[in-house]
Amino acid sequence: MNAKDNQPGKTSKKIYKRAVKVLTGGVSRNTIFRKPHPFYVSTANGSYITDVDGCKRLDFANNMASLIHGHSHPKIVEAVTEQLQKGSAFTMGSEIEVKYAELLNERTKGFKKIRFMNSGTEAVMTMIKAARVYTGKHKIAKAEGTYHGTYDYAEISQTSGPTNWGSIDKPNAVPVVEETPEGILNNMVIFPYNDIERTLEILDQNANKVACVLIDLVPHRVGLIPGNKDYIEAIYKWTRKNNTILAFDEVVTYRVNYSGAQEDYNIEPDLTALGKIIGGGFPIGALAGKAEIMQVLDPRETFLRHPHSGTFSANPISITAGYTAMSMFNKQAVLNLNKLTKTAIKQVEEAISLAEIPACVTGSGSMFRIHFNNIKPTTYREAYQEKEVKAIINELLDYLFLKEDILMINTCSCMFATTMNQQHVDQLSEALLNGFRIIKPKLEDLS
Amino acid sequence: MNAKDNQPGKTSKKIYKRAVKVLTGGVSRNTIFRKPHPFYVSTANGSYITDVDGCKRLDFANNMASLIHGHSHPKIVEAVTEQLQKGSAFTMGSEIEVKYAELLNERTKGFKKIRFMNSGTEAVMTMIKAARVYTGKHKIAKAEGTYHGTYDYAEISQTSGPTNWGSIDKPNAVPVVEETPEGILNNMVIFPYNDIERTLEILDQNANKVACVLIDLVPHRVGLIPGNKDYIEAIYKWTRKNNTILAFDEVVTYRVNYSGAQEDYNIEPDLTALGKIIGGGFPIGALAGKAEIMQVLDPRETFLRHPHSGTFSANPISITAGYTAMSMFNKQAVLNLNKLTKTAIKQVEEAISLAEIPACVTGSGSMFRIHFNNIKPTTYREAYQEKEVKAIINELLDYLFLKEDILMINTCSCMFATTMNQQHVDQLSEALLNGFRIIKPKLEDLS
Repeated sequence: MNAKDNQPGKTSKKIYKRAVKVLTGGVSRNTIFRKPHPFYVSTANGSYITDVDGCKRLDFANNMASLIHGHSHPKIVEAVTEQLQKGSAFTMGSEIEVKYAELLNERTKGFKKIRFMNSGTEAVMTMIKAARVYTGKHKIAKAEGTYHGTYDYAEISQTSGPTNWGSIDKPNAVPVVEETPEGILNNMVIFPYNDIERTLEILDQNANKVACVLIDLVPHRVGLIPGNKDYIEAIYKWTRKNNTILAFDEVVTYRVNYSGAQEDYNIEPDLTALGKIIGGGFPIGALAGKAEIMQVLDPRETFLRHPHSGTFSANPISITAGYTAMSMFNKQAVLNLNKLTKTAIKQVEEAISLAEIPACVTGSGSMFRIHFNNIKPTTYREAYQEKEVKAIINELLDYLFLKEDILMINTCSCMFATTMNQQHVDQLSEALLNGFRIIKPKLEDLS
Repeated sequence: MNAKDNQPGKTSKKIYKRAVKVLTGGVSRNTIFRKPHPFYVSTANGSYITDVDGCKRLDFANNMASLIHGHSHPKIVEAVTEQLQKGSAFTMGSEIEVKYAELLNERTKGFKKIRFMNSGTEAVMTMIKAARVYTGKHKIAKAEGTYHGTYDYAEISQTSGPTNWGSIDKPNAVPVVEETPEGILNNMVIFPYNDIERTLEILDQNANKVACVLIDLVPHRVGLIPGNKDYIEAIYKWTRKNNTILAFDEVVTYRVNYSGAQEDYNIEPDLTALGKIIGGGFPIGALAGKAEIMQVLDPRETFLRHPHSGTFSANPISITAGYTAMSMFNKQAVLNLNKLTKTAIKQVEEAISLAEIPACVTGSGSMFRIHFNNIKPTTYREAYQEKEVKAIINELLDYLFLKEDILMINTCSCMFATTMNQQHVDQLSEALLNGFRIIKPKLEDLS
């Protein structure tokens, strides 16, 4: 049985009918929602997810970039199964947390001290709070369009659009959640990603007030466009001059190189938030960075400036899975994965060219995103998708999911895993070529 | 080998030496920190934790009240081991999430719709944001001394003390983390728990401005004192008159009855935050409540008022473990556990009486806390421990840990698990009697 059946998702539809009665909108994560209903998983293994109707799909979403070794990797399953017998959480320490901290700190030059928590959202929240404590300042600078989890300060302007984003010279602080307090909005400094001149101008207008500049080096929602080297370095220099924390959000991008996306730049951030792949498929977050800044969290201090805890922080299951995953994701594994992704990008570009559609590919490391423009976007506003384009992308994604047995991320992005090979890449590029041909007339109607 | 050895924690000391080099303060959770160093776990099983030097201790902390069936319960291990083979996280749904939502919503009358997330901190944050959206108001009312996780708004005044708490008629909004923005503090309404008259007076002063009143029904940090029925009902009535969300934080207290601590009251909250035991030992959080309020999170709405996601939200490992744990924690199991805890409280009270020390016990359901006063505290300020008392409690806890092989929570509290029996209770009360006799001279010096 496969997705070409007449009634794909028949059982999923039934489950969803029950789901909407007990879960708001039938889901806990909007990312898994699809119209008319989400699909439910029976088993997931390696690069494949099989749904409850037996349809097996090639998975390029990898739980929103969090699975670097695909599903149920035998080594991770083995390590976690062993730890399960020894307990999943205690009000005492576990040596594996120390070993894992050693591994990550050795991996990335700028990580002197680390602290584990439960999610990327928690990691970014703690990073922002620590920046305030260390600098004594309260404004948070972030780029328009970047996603940094659901802490109010971190999410402002993530979903800005033409109706509310304001002048590019001074982008508005646009709330994501209704009724976000004014006090939060007033403490935000929003700048246009990859636009040095405007970013520095905006930061200068807020000199002496900015606790941290929050940077995602390859922001997915901005367009999966890497930050230009001179741009990131200019921001770094500005933070040095202005006693401001340079705060990297590498929750998604730590997969880009052995030491994270930051390896591509000649500067070191003060703090880095981590999550996703470092949990080996289990809930995790972490904050790493300079010892003197991380010290604000140190419980041995007479005056503890930033008390912080968490019932499941550094639980030995997430830590064991993460340690196993990141040990396997060694330098060679990173190189191989990035090479395969490069090949995939090349093949997708060939498909674009064969289908003769206006499209291009952005990305970095083991991630790429398809845009339906001839020219690669370099900023959030260029990458912004109008409703009509989104509808076409949804049609393409539905086609891939329902007819080609391929799962991609809803922004038209792929996040690779080490379980993938050339055959998977061929399947992807052929499916995309078919899909491009289907949406071609609609793309032509747009222009 | 046991804790009476000459060098307890010899190996732990060595691990901690490595830990401080890579983790800030050597820990990810301040709750596991103890002087001169934390202890590290080798294995944990049922009611016992064995440290890396082979010392086996009876565990009354149960990972800060989150393990209702103790450690590595065979049924939870079995269910999770099975799910591990099928994947730990995907960008699609899992039927077990729906089954678990059905189980919890059936369990508690006020749960009409639920959404899972990764921690209690995330659950409370989402609850506060949803309350703002639904009411269009921004002030958050909470009690002095209550702990609700690490979201700024939720943590204000958790650690208030005599030097900064201000007048009881209008307690100060005291930040926990340094440099908490004024905008946050100005949006807080702090009231004295269990003090009807003052609480209503303070709420009235903020009528038309309060989005939600955040209530823990048996607040651990306030003194593990149950909220008086007339107090909680008065607050409920106030929220009805003032278009305000009554927001219960049952992250800790859901264990108190089959339907949570709220079962003890004749009213229903609008929203409830959950966490801890509902994860079966794995990271979890959840928000449950009235359908029309939860609807602000519904991705099917044309204008989604409160977008919310989370990479590991409702991951099938936490959900499977939670479902298994809560299915086993049925009405009879709750009754048995609460009965055993009652017996324990009685025996501890007998030990207090035998030792002739000024002390008393508070608590509810399967939790209790020892206070070193003759009279049971009824408010946070009465329960507040001065530095000298804290030092004596630490001495008692160290004695229990190092000489009696018993782990308690650092507030001098016990959180029971269904793996406990009369023998464990006898061991606890005898150990406490010995401990009380040791600290007695110091307690006498205080008065």
